[in-house]
Amino acid sequence: MLYQQVDTAVTDGESLPWVPLVPYADTILLKYFKLDPIKGEWIVMMKAPMGVQLPKHHHTGTVMVYTIEGQWKYKEHDWIAGPDSIVYETAASSHTYEPVAAGASGYVTTLVQVNGELLFLDDNENVIASENWKTSLKRYLDYCELHRIEPKDLTAFN
Amino acid sequence: MLYQQVDTAVTDGESLPWVPLVPYADTILLKYFKLDPIKGEWIVMMKAPMGVQLPKHHHTGTVMVYTIEGQWKYKEHDWIAGPDSIVYETAASSHTYEPVAAGASGYVTTLVQVNGELLFLDDNENVIASENWKTSLKRYLDYCELHRIEPKDLTAFN
Amino acid sequence: MLYQQVDTAVTDGESLPWVPLVPYADTILLKYFKLDPIKGEWIVMMKAPMGVQLPKHHHTGTVMVYTIEGQWKYKEHDWIAGPDSIVYETAASSHTYEPVAAGASGYVTTLVQVNGELLFLDDNENVIASENWKTSLKRYLDYCELHRIEPKDLTAFN
Amino acid sequence: MLYQQVDTAVTDGESLPWVPLVPYADTILLKYFKLDPIKGEWIVMMKAPMGVQLPKHHHTGTVMVYTIEGQWKYKEHDWIAGPDSIVYETAASSHTYEPVAAGASGYVTTLVQVNGELLFLDDNENVIASENWKTSLKRYLDYCELHRIEPKDLTAFN
Repeated sequence: MLYQQVDTAVTDGESLPWVPLVPYADTILLKYFKLDPIKGEWIVMMKAPMGVQLPKHHHTGTVMVYTIEGQWKYKEHDWIAGPDSIVYETAASSHTYEPVAAGASGYVTTLVQVNGELLFLDDNENVIASENWKTSLKRYLDYCELHRIEPKDLTAFN
Repeated sequence: MLYQQVDTAVTDGESLPWVPLVPYADTILLKYFKLDPIKGEWIVMMKAPMGVQLPKHHHTGTVMVYTIEGQWKYKEHDWIAGPDSIVYETAASSHTYEPVAAGASGYVTTLVQVNGELLFLDDNENVIASENWKTSLKRYLDYCELHRIEPKDLTAFN
Repeated sequence: MLYQQVDTAVTDGESLPWVPLVPYADTILLKYFKLDPIKGEWIVMMKAPMGVQLPKHHHTGTVMVYTIEGQWKYKEHDWIAGPDSIVYETAASSHTYEPVAAGASGYVTTLVQVNGELLFLDDNENVIASENWKTSLKRYLDYCELHRIEPKDLTAFN
Repeated sequence: MLYQQVDTAVTDGESLPWVPLVPYADTILLKYFKLDPIKGEWIVMMKAPMGVQLPKHHHTGTVMVYTIEGQWKYKEHDWIAGPDSIVYETAASSHTYEPVAAGASGYVTTLVQVNGELLFLDDNENVIASENWKTSLKRYLDYCELHRIEPKDLTAFN
């Protein structure tokens, strides 16, 4: 039964690759920790360099962002998020990401927990692309295959 | 503080209108019970007549469907859902709704709990429309205004 | 990988037994539909006869109750829940269940979606027992074994 | 309506106090970021010194732990969690926290997102105390009052 496969466990960041956010912005790097195929939650670390441009996006569920280093903002809000802050994004909100200041590594580094999907929007608010646990898994598996890395089962809980 | 507004409470179905699913299918009727503006959960009762056609849709989070009367299916699955069944839809799944047999009222009636959004897709899997707590709230408030019904705050928890 | 086991599916109520809520109240009957071993969500139908007594309970997460027939209340609230109502219980709330009027079957019948645990409390608010996906699974499997029913994997999503 | 109070926002860690985990272990310090009074989610940073002892605890929902510095383990598991790791705890799991190595600050520092409650257990698995959004809010408000700090509304989403 499924419950027999389920246990509390650690996923070590050192064992995971930094995967470029292709085809949208290959200078943004993602480290995927967990991709929940049932509820659609995903846990990912993101490194974004200064000057990166991404389309406006819309969230279908909540998002929690913990900033590890650097500063960033959403164009639609006045606040700036820096180290040791929590941004809590509510369902069906839309905004445009913008790095403000790099940290020691040269990146803005954040830990992001997403529930559901991130929909990229064009200037007329049409959905032009979607990110979810499935697209994330495909990007991770493609990267592992290309670089001959043995993939972990990020969709499991054990 | 927000917590002072929060309490366990009942929402009585008799006090709520049946709202047509305009502009997609005005013979489908929806009774909205709860629209969570933080997490994006919505609870709605749906009455669909036989022969109704809707585009394929994609779910960004989980959905639970309890069938009250009648039978329905998704074209992409072999199973049929009838009275006293639970359909559990996992995140990032897509399918096309189809009524199979009406219940005593002439409708297929279901209770649906949605987490996140329902994205309508065209034949090329492009997103052509979205349903979420915000579009649901607007449809409910528009209906109330048109029919001079005093709206309830379906986004509150008390 | 785990995701390969995951799919949208129906669970038919007719295929599931009514399991007495032993050892607390064996006249209360439960039909378990889903027991999520990762997030701790459980979906259950409950039939309670008039006059049943249960200790006060505390919820660690949200609960949604849809009343199918009959009427019930919590002693701590003034409202009564009847057919086609939704009760939405917020996290860390406590209350005492009380049937008010039986439906056609002689029971108050509800569909309940629980997130987390139900903790039974004594008069000093001490926790004397807990109900969660694990205790529910054990009660279901014990019942199946006793009555020589082949158990379903209620913890799976497919 | 409630939705009019809801928006995506940042909570800055520098603006929040470190609150001792009284009465259990006053050398453990907690910085509360968010206490969700509806769903029961709480987001907290924790600093634990070496040698701290806490009773075994049980989780009613999922927990995500991101380790910022230092190393820690659960006595019931072989793995050790260090910097840049994610521990994902599944619902209805129990374990005993143990610091393994302090970070540069002299503490093990973690960011913890909890869904539901943490129940402290005695040697016979009886529940002897509970932590949830309500007990967390009380501890924060008590600390603010004692130290004449103007409390923020950690239960709000804006």
